[in-house]
Amino acid sequence: MATKKLDETATGVFAIAATPFTDDGALDDASTDRMVDFYLECGVAGLTILGVMGEATKLSPEESTGACRRVVNRVAGRVPVVVGVSAPGLNAIRSLTASVMDIGAAGVMVQPMAGLRTDEQIEGYFHMVCDALGDVPIVLQDYPPSSGVYMSVPMLNRLFNDLSSLVILKHEDWPGLRKLTKFRADERADRRRRASILVGNGGLFLPQELRRGADGAMTGFAFPEILVQVCARHAAGDGDGAEDLFDAYLPLIRYEQQVGVGLAIRKETLRRRGVLASARTRAPGPALDADDQAELSRLIDRLKTRLRATELAVPEI
Amino acid sequence: MATKKLDETATGVFAIAATPFTDDGALDDASTDRMVDFYLECGVAGLTILGVMGEATKLSPEESTGACRRVVNRVAGRVPVVVGVSAPGLNAIRSLTASVMDIGAAGVMVQPMAGLRTDEQIEGYFHMVCDALGDVPIVLQDYPPSSGVYMSVPMLNRLFNDLSSLVILKHEDWPGLRKLTKFRADERADRRRRASILVGNGGLFLPQELRRGADGAMTGFAFPEILVQVCARHAAGDGDGAEDLFDAYLPLIRYEQQVGVGLAIRKETLRRRGVLASARTRAPGPALDADDQAELSRLIDRLKTRLRATELAVPEI
Amino acid sequence: MATKKLDETATGVFAIAATPFTDDGALDDASTDRMVDFYLECGVAGLTILGVMGEATKLSPEESTGACRRVVNRVAGRVPVVVGVSAPGLNAIRSLTASVMDIGAAGVMVQPMAGLRTDEQIEGYFHMVCDALGDVPIVLQDYPPSSGVYMSVPMLNRLFNDLSSLVILKHEDWPGLRKLTKFRADERADRRRRASILVGNGGLFLPQELRRGADGAMTGFAFPEILVQVCARHAAGDGDGAEDLFDAYLPLIRYEQQVGVGLAIRKETLRRRGVLASARTRAPGPALDADDQAELSRLIDRLKTRLRATELAVPEI
Amino acid sequence: MATKKLDETATGVFAIAATPFTDDGALDDASTDRMVDFYLECGVAGLTILGVMGEATKLSPEESTGACRRVVNRVAGRVPVVVGVSAPGLNAIRSLTASVMDIGAAGVMVQPMAGLRTDEQIEGYFHMVCDALGDVPIVLQDYPPSSGVYMSVPMLNRLFNDLSSLVILKHEDWPGLRKLTKFRADERADRRRRASILVGNGGLFLPQELRRGADGAMTGFAFPEILVQVCARHAAGDGDGAEDLFDAYLPLIRYEQQVGVGLAIRKETLRRRGVLASARTRAPGPALDADDQAELSRLIDRLKTRLRATELAVPEI
Repeated sequence: MATKKLDETATGVFAIAATPFTDDGALDDASTDRMVDFYLECGVAGLTILGVMGEATKLSPEESTGACRRVVNRVAGRVPVVVGVSAPGLNAIRSLTASVMDIGAAGVMVQPMAGLRTDEQIEGYFHMVCDALGDVPIVLQDYPPSSGVYMSVPMLNRLFNDLSSLVILKHEDWPGLRKLTKFRADERADRRRRASILVGNGGLFLPQELRRGADGAMTGFAFPEILVQVCARHAAGDGDGAEDLFDAYLPLIRYEQQVGVGLAIRKETLRRRGVLASARTRAPGPALDADDQAELSRLIDRLKTRLRATELAVPEI
Repeated sequence: MATKKLDETATGVFAIAATPFTDDGALDDASTDRMVDFYLECGVAGLTILGVMGEATKLSPEESTGACRRVVNRVAGRVPVVVGVSAPGLNAIRSLTASVMDIGAAGVMVQPMAGLRTDEQIEGYFHMVCDALGDVPIVLQDYPPSSGVYMSVPMLNRLFNDLSSLVILKHEDWPGLRKLTKFRADERADRRRRASILVGNGGLFLPQELRRGADGAMTGFAFPEILVQVCARHAAGDGDGAEDLFDAYLPLIRYEQQVGVGLAIRKETLRRRGVLASARTRAPGPALDADDQAELSRLIDRLKTRLRATELAVPEI
Repeated sequence: MATKKLDETATGVFAIAATPFTDDGALDDASTDRMVDFYLECGVAGLTILGVMGEATKLSPEESTGACRRVVNRVAGRVPVVVGVSAPGLNAIRSLTASVMDIGAAGVMVQPMAGLRTDEQIEGYFHMVCDALGDVPIVLQDYPPSSGVYMSVPMLNRLFNDLSSLVILKHEDWPGLRKLTKFRADERADRRRRASILVGNGGLFLPQELRRGADGAMTGFAFPEILVQVCARHAAGDGDGAEDLFDAYLPLIRYEQQVGVGLAIRKETLRRRGVLASARTRAPGPALDADDQAELSRLIDRLKTRLRATELAVPEI
Repeated sequence: MATKKLDETATGVFAIAATPFTDDGALDDASTDRMVDFYLECGVAGLTILGVMGEATKLSPEESTGACRRVVNRVAGRVPVVVGVSAPGLNAIRSLTASVMDIGAAGVMVQPMAGLRTDEQIEGYFHMVCDALGDVPIVLQDYPPSSGVYMSVPMLNRLFNDLSSLVILKHEDWPGLRKLTKFRADERADRRRRASILVGNGGLFLPQELRRGADGAMTGFAFPEILVQVCARHAAGDGDGAEDLFDAYLPLIRYEQQVGVGLAIRKETLRRRGVLASARTRAPGPALDADDQAELSRLIDRLKTRLRATELAVPEI
């Protein structure tokens, strides 16, 4: 299948997809198909699989390529599929990349290996990775709470200038609003070639980030259609409309932004929306208890009540 | 002045106070007085000074006691004043505690020293501190993002059972909702004596936390009157009213929850509200740039617009 | 092959084995065989493979089981083989354990997953792992510089009392001398059932640790015959003889104790001793440069000069 | 007193001095005087006070200046005295620096504030500090195990080129041998102006580091006269003589290299040598127990036995 490769023009919402499991922990192909259909109906511009939210480190290499094939086949070229390939060894990164590009992925996502400290070490790492992956387009994931690796804008500029396969910055440093502004400004000042900026962190600052120059979001919020509309309204010049919609969902967005248990909240929300058959995560992984379930129900009920008082659409859930 | 000491019955909102500086970085007594008056008008149940938000580590011992005296005198016994006394050495903790209790503080706040890892080390530390401080009431600050120290509920139970001077848990582990539920449940199950639970983290989950058993909040949100009302509505059985009010302010609460720069946002907001003469922090410390200022203005404008469409009061700012 | 399983009576030196690669990074079976023969000739009491030093995270599952099979077959039951099975997901731990036990391993080594903080979390983790692994004997690796997880003696006591499959503590907390003493003392005081204590950290404190109650060492020093003799002399009551021998090698032991590059030093030393065909590590991994090579040569030359002035044997290298 | 200021020509051994306390924790002036005399008799090239080993964070500002005055007066200009001034706030750094330079210190030592991550942040920090301190000569302490801040050679080069008050690198990254080589080589290649390199980490790799271009050591080993002689022999071209002497003391050097408890070992050793009246550290701080004491005694006895078999001098202790 001739899939368009990722490039620096990416905009809109790339949904970070969970990896659906059955209640006994096996890969759930039927839920995977429904999930792909769901995301496409939401209007996403792309899909990202096998990231932190995809529990990638708990899959065997065979499961990883299997899950990728299922998604890519179902997407059938309608949007690009990005695959997380971060791993401790370069061999694993290279071999998973080769597999998923062969399957039809549009590019891969790489976060710096844990333990990298100085600019010099980080740059050395990405040079090594990019050398190994040839011309495969790469999303550079800048997510210090997960990686423990911190990257400055000057260093990111050097990386994007030196390594042509880097095309998207997944921006989720926190706090990172000023960093985003500076990264974009350096591009306008010709200190760096064009890069797409897609924001993560559950989209918690999406309206602010769009105004500061983000091109979109790459995140796993369980109502991705809302982020799609926020981006669309912003692009249409309706900043307040975008933020009104966003703010209506902010209590939930905030609620999902709990490290660890956030994944279980998202999977459960997708289950309630009819997308996943099971909210299960693989051990050791989070699960909701009765209090969490009631709390989530209440937040969703309040959301619907609030939306009914507006002209905004009320989701079925 | 006969100040009532802190105890485990504490409820409501304890405002975490910034330390006001003039534009050239000196202690600003006039702003301190205005700030105390402001907080009392907001209806806070107490004040907490010289914490992380008070830039305590950038004050000399003389400045610390001076700032404390100014606040305590202005409060004049109307609410309890808690003073952060965390320091690398036990001598400093002991001597600052003696000074501030002598001045009229109602108790002190202690967070575990950086570098403590195991339950055994943490327990040893608090036993040592409590031994040194005698019967001074203590707020145990559980704030891993700042301390790097992680505390489980079973260990907190042991600490509160063993050390009678511990009376309040400042709960700001994150994610920590389930932890709060468990801590409260263990009390109901007689696994621990009564302790007050006041939540931090900018109050980002305050409605959820109140329903899970929190007694109030201890945090530095620059609209403390709102947190006071949220707590009051919750206490009056109006959970939805509490959360409606909270959600209206959530975009700002979320915005302040940026580590580091959040302090500058709070000081600037208090400056705009007429409380502080200057938003200055001491070096090395954060400051807002033009983009941040415009962003904050926009968030406040949107808040007022939103409130005008409701029966809720619109703040003057 | 009926291999004796690991148990709490383990003593002596378990050599932590590197994973031999050819110059182009493939598994090197011939070197693996030579390495096994070498260790057995050194008199080791056991072998540990696929640990940090074995670059386990850079091997595919097939390579891991292949490397294990090669070692186990070559050992042919003469000493127990322990296999590191730490992984982010429980599935991977369970499946690798099943494979290597089927191949003939005597037990597995597990270090706590990164990110565990409190005693409660760590205990929960090991209960989960032990439940999953049934009666497979387990070496609990206590190596905070690698895991970031810190364990107190009281918690280790609870773990070993509660989980009968834990049989050996690989002790390499640092500084950890007092911890070792306390762990052993608690056993003598019947606060814990018997456990074997094998020390790591390159053996840097081996004489001290033997006197404090260690049963032996589990480490990757490239002259394992020396550690074997140190343990033997100690066991024979010749503490000074043990320490004299140890001290003669201390400059090299110290030199290998450099995190990261230490692995390259060990592999190069084993290459010079005729054990490995190549000192290569897998990317991203350390390699010696000309300065390092000269420095290592000098240290080895000085060692030989020093030994020639004594009655101690001079190694061929 | 006209004290010669620190500059980039520094060589030899700067002793990192403990802060002597009496058994009840007060500053011990008599021991301080004896300690100064002792270090000068050892032949040190300078003294460094109020560092990590000096328990600086447990002293009040008055105690810090008092301790500094006592040392500077006793030294009476014979060698330069360097004072650690690291603190969370710039005000404290500036004011302590002003005080100690006024007293007669030859320069100050600064380590980067905890929490600095990227090259950009670290450079910004040192620019701010150097701006604040004017032309006071500065030792840049590069000690990641204590600071959590990691610095690359290219960034150090930029710092030393940009900031003329930086004159000495206290090098104690670990492993750091290659870093030292590169830092020196960049100087020879005119990528950086001259800087003195004094090594820390207890001197554990001193002979290797001298051969790689270090100018000396700045460390707290309790037999500083040995490090002085090692440096002198190296400078005289007798590399093997230097290393023979070093290796004889290596078991003790290694033993002191235990983070935390190492300070108690050093203070106790200095007590036994008649320098300090008490080995006490301030709470929370380490203390030796009976096992530790016996272990230290044994190591010292073995050292003396070993030295008696050589032409090397046997210390009185």
